[in-house]
Amino acid sequence: MTESGRPRVVIVGGGFGGLYAARALRRAPIDLTLIDRRNFHLFQPLLYQVATGVLSPGDIAVPLRSILRKQRNATVLLGDVREINVEQRYVRTVEGLRRDFDVLLVATGARHSYFGHDEWAEHAPGLKTVEDATEIRRRILIAYEAAEQEADPARRRAWMNFVVVGAGPTGVELAGALGEIAHETLRGDFRRIRPQRARIYLVEGLERALPGYPEDLSEAARRTLRRLGVQVRTGTLVTHIDEEGVTLGSGEDQRRIDARTVLWAAGVQASSLGRQLADATGAETDKAGRLVVEPDLSLPGHPSIFVIGDLALYTHQTGKPLPGVAQVAIQQGGYAARAIEAHLDGRRRRKPFRYFDPGSLATIGRGKAVGDFGSFRLAGFPAWVAWVGVHIFYLMEFENRILVATQWAWNYFTRRRGARLITGQPLQPEIKDPA
Amino acid sequence: MTESGRPRVVIVGGGFGGLYAARALRRAPIDLTLIDRRNFHLFQPLLYQVATGVLSPGDIAVPLRSILRKQRNATVLLGDVREINVEQRYVRTVEGLRRDFDVLLVATGARHSYFGHDEWAEHAPGLKTVEDATEIRRRILIAYEAAEQEADPARRRAWMNFVVVGAGPTGVELAGALGEIAHETLRGDFRRIRPQRARIYLVEGLERALPGYPEDLSEAARRTLRRLGVQVRTGTLVTHIDEEGVTLGSGEDQRRIDARTVLWAAGVQASSLGRQLADATGAETDKAGRLVVEPDLSLPGHPSIFVIGDLALYTHQTGKPLPGVAQVAIQQGGYAARAIEAHLDGRRRRKPFRYFDPGSLATIGRGKAVGDFGSFRLAGFPAWVAWVGVHIFYLMEFENRILVATQWAWNYFTRRRGARLITGQPLQPEIKDPA
Repeated sequence: MTESGRPRVVIVGGGFGGLYAARALRRAPIDLTLIDRRNFHLFQPLLYQVATGVLSPGDIAVPLRSILRKQRNATVLLGDVREINVEQRYVRTVEGLRRDFDVLLVATGARHSYFGHDEWAEHAPGLKTVEDATEIRRRILIAYEAAEQEADPARRRAWMNFVVVGAGPTGVELAGALGEIAHETLRGDFRRIRPQRARIYLVEGLERALPGYPEDLSEAARRTLRRLGVQVRTGTLVTHIDEEGVTLGSGEDQRRIDARTVLWAAGVQASSLGRQLADATGAETDKAGRLVVEPDLSLPGHPSIFVIGDLALYTHQTGKPLPGVAQVAIQQGGYAARAIEAHLDGRRRRKPFRYFDPGSLATIGRGKAVGDFGSFRLAGFPAWVAWVGVHIFYLMEFENRILVATQWAWNYFTRRRGARLITGQPLQPEIKDPA
Repeated sequence: MTESGRPRVVIVGGGFGGLYAARALRRAPIDLTLIDRRNFHLFQPLLYQVATGVLSPGDIAVPLRSILRKQRNATVLLGDVREINVEQRYVRTVEGLRRDFDVLLVATGARHSYFGHDEWAEHAPGLKTVEDATEIRRRILIAYEAAEQEADPARRRAWMNFVVVGAGPTGVELAGALGEIAHETLRGDFRRIRPQRARIYLVEGLERALPGYPEDLSEAARRTLRRLGVQVRTGTLVTHIDEEGVTLGSGEDQRRIDARTVLWAAGVQASSLGRQLADATGAETDKAGRLVVEPDLSLPGHPSIFVIGDLALYTHQTGKPLPGVAQVAIQQGGYAARAIEAHLDGRRRRKPFRYFDPGSLATIGRGKAVGDFGSFRLAGFPAWVAWVGVHIFYLMEFENRILVATQWAWNYFTRRRGARLITGQPLQPEIKDPA
């Protein structure tokens, strides 16, 4: 308890799970601390639009302090939690700050995983942070600039080959955007190369694109991607990635794609705090490092420690894990808030968490999407309209809604992308003179 | 001449000068190459709004290729020009690309200068690039976060002291924005500190703020700054800057301000290409490295080499150098285009360049500005409305106008700043626990 006599609730992570939990606790008589290493909440489902030059980082990020400003029971703390002490009930940040808790909620999510090939990371960036997005944007734009300057045809080709690894929603969205960049956005921008001649490969180990969706939607996505010039290679494993390109398959089926731009959308792994928490509590984890949680989202044997979102493995509803999407985290955040209140009141919360699946939407390009709503499915323009509506609705601030809507309208009518900045590292000095 | 038989014009620099020259040459029968090390034109007068969290970089940057897409005589080249060979008439980029020219226009502008104290750069960033702006934004926001976490009162105070060096338009705009951030934007965002208690110092070596403006406007600016909580110290020299703060004056008058955030808006120096060009052509330079140009903006004795914008020193109109503002560069770009055409036609251009001064506007905060239009002066809200109109007008793309207008309206009515992202380096690990 604090001086105020109110129980201390610490939430680690200001993503969808942590933030929605914090907001759902706004009327609780507690001392709430939300700790995140970033000062903003990021609307991750639109991050690929930053990576592909439609939106700016500021459009999809809202300061956590702004969101919780009027919530008097809440304190926001900027810090990178590295230590969780379950016995003595405190967390500590790498900056040296310690916070004691009576109840802990961990919602630190996941980062991308290279399946044991961490050396691929530098050649095939994934998309989790704002910095990832601006780095991917830089690589895509630099590739065309380098191709324009490159005299050697084989090397020019390698700059104009793009490989996206993994055909889940993020991979499909990235590949679709790459197709649009080549065929629409950059049309006419160059004098020596024709951006339309870029080749975009979408590589997936499983047998179809959007493996989590019904088969007919996978097929619809594949057709749309093909029209955008994307070559979809399903049932194909990536066996090697280096600076020059990727190797697909092995043995006789082995194939090489020379590509200077490779994007990783294949796998995720739970945040490293999960491992620590598992060691300290004896909780089980799956291969991806997610923690197996109880029906009330607490850890087994630790009724005051909750884990939600991408860090949690919840199988009590269907026997299969819930997917790692924003909706699951949002609903778990709301449930966890009620569970925390019940726990602090000494009540037992009996009703297990139940995920209400509002349906899934994946966009493939301008005016095109697929949607799976269980009883009915959508493809094409109606699905895209639904996608636009849902994403605008969930943006936190009114200002962001206006900004995002403006830029989507701009992109829809002009096919341009306004945020095509190359920032950070300049062009590689290895490019040779074509003259 | 090229294969096409058309003369080759190379423009180095895609700022206001180079870009407006390129556009003014759109109907000329030439092969035009615009070389810039960035892929975008930056609307620099609004860069301080990125540094202070109102706008995103993408809002004030437009890809050069986008702007010149339909101009068929123009090629955009991404590259950092490091070598100008006046004898053999070529330029070469650090990436190794060489471009021959018949006519050369150099408009590479200026960067900030620390008057021989380059060691101050790391403690007092200046504001010239997008990266500068996001770095300054990071420092401002981190300062409040660190203050919130700091237990020691003296150290907390140092985090809440802000020093802006130089009270020209940029310094005044930055200091005004810092005042608004403290008193309006962050109000209520923190739990331990009160952002309103931040102290903002604006230090100027000359006797008044906005030394380039009439005295009554300097006075108006000073009053407005004071109302925003900014302490203006004129006639005060900065003699030392380190990580802990700044030293003002020397001898008995010496004074120390402990401040963890120091911003540099004091001096500029011509881009380093100027030095090279001076050595190669024998052109004179002033203390700031600007090249003395002829009445037609060419270099003395080199009628096919033109220098404009912040890199040029033009004294033929009033005997005094023209100011380093966007309007001068824009008008010189247009004039240079005509002079280049005349030169290529073998005509002598007799009429010297004349700057038409449309007036100067500096904004100090939300709804406040000062304007000097020669015959009449404005201060307060009317000046601010004029400032808003002029800046929206000069933004290159319709989309940017909408985005900037939206965010200004948002800021005006809510006093919030939407783009408050801390990106790049996280919080310094040296912060100690206040608990």
